Amino acid sequence: MTGPVVRALPITPEQFAPFGDVIAALPSHRQAMNAARFERFNDLATVDVDTDDGAHAAISLARSMSMTASPYRFDLMERHPFGSQAFVPLSPFRFVVVVAPAGDSVEASDLRAFVTDGHQGINYHKGVWHMPLIAFETGQDFLIIDRAGGGSNYEECILGEPVTLEVE
Amino acid sequence: MTGPVVRALPITPEQFAPFGDVIAALPSHRQAMNAARFERFNDLATVDVDTDDGAHAAISLARSMSMTASPYRFDLMERHPFGSQAFVPLSPFRFVVVVAPAGDSVEASDLRAFVTDGHQGINYHKGVWHMPLIAFETGQDFLIIDRAGGGSNYEECILGEPVTLEVE
Repeated sequence: MTGPVVRALPITPEQFAPFGDVIAALPSHRQAMNAARFERFNDLATVDVDTDDGAHAAISLARSMSMTASPYRFDLMERHPFGSQAFVPLSPFRFVVVVAPAGDSVEASDLRAFVTDGHQGINYHKGVWHMPLIAFETGQDFLIIDRAGGGSNYEECILGEPVTLEVE
Repeated sequence: MTGPVVRALPITPEQFAPFGDVIAALPSHRQAMNAARFERFNDLATVDVDTDDGAHAAISLARSMSMTASPYRFDLMERHPFGSQAFVPLSPFRFVVVVAPAGDSVEASDLRAFVTDGHQGINYHKGVWHMPLIAFETGQDFLIIDRAGGGSNYEECILGEPVTLEVE
């Protein structure tokens, strides 16, 4: 294939920090809970949602209806100016995110791609550009924690040419 | 065993409504997403968190460290006066919740118990009394969406005598 390529590398909290949070059993966040019957990995991500216009933070679910081919080409990035957005897999499976720093627009050279280990979720910080969610299998369920109701919380940017996503 | 018994019945959104929300792929909440590559079950639960005292809504994870015997006896109920609290299993497994209406205290006769179908999560409304989380296996992971930081958001009530939990 021709044109720019972005290669997804294994996600780590440190490398993903400019874009958001990794939601996983991070030892640094560990504490006992319920008389030590559980270990809790506390406050892994902040739900950061503007509640003007009657909006609120909500819990939703997404189920993949089609399988995305690999390699995959895309030219659309989106952002949510009024809230964070978290995706957490509800069974063990890997997924890929492509991000770019918050800013007026995105170019292919701004893109960074990450692949999860099958147990991690992610939380995009408010305003961070990201590729719309894709899944490599049908029937995969994600929990979503983001902003519901209120005014428009969606903006998009079309890249100059399609980018090919490659996964490590 | 002697003393009061509460029997867990299969959870449904209608029966659980006085206490909170069921987080599941409810057809009534279905909408298309990402050019129909996903179906989204939108706004299944509201994250309702008082943000005074510097508190915020947060995403955390809990992992069971011990297995709870069945039948199980308990005498402690808890509530969070300043926020909702959601638990969603991160792999398919059933879990049990015991709840009682918001109010000054709880008696055994107030208790209702529910068991999930292995895919459902739940969201306790602010102030609803509930039994502390238990799990029937070790190593089960739950996603938690609740209030982090700020002042105390925990109150408890000791029942007059232990209650035996039975699961349908």
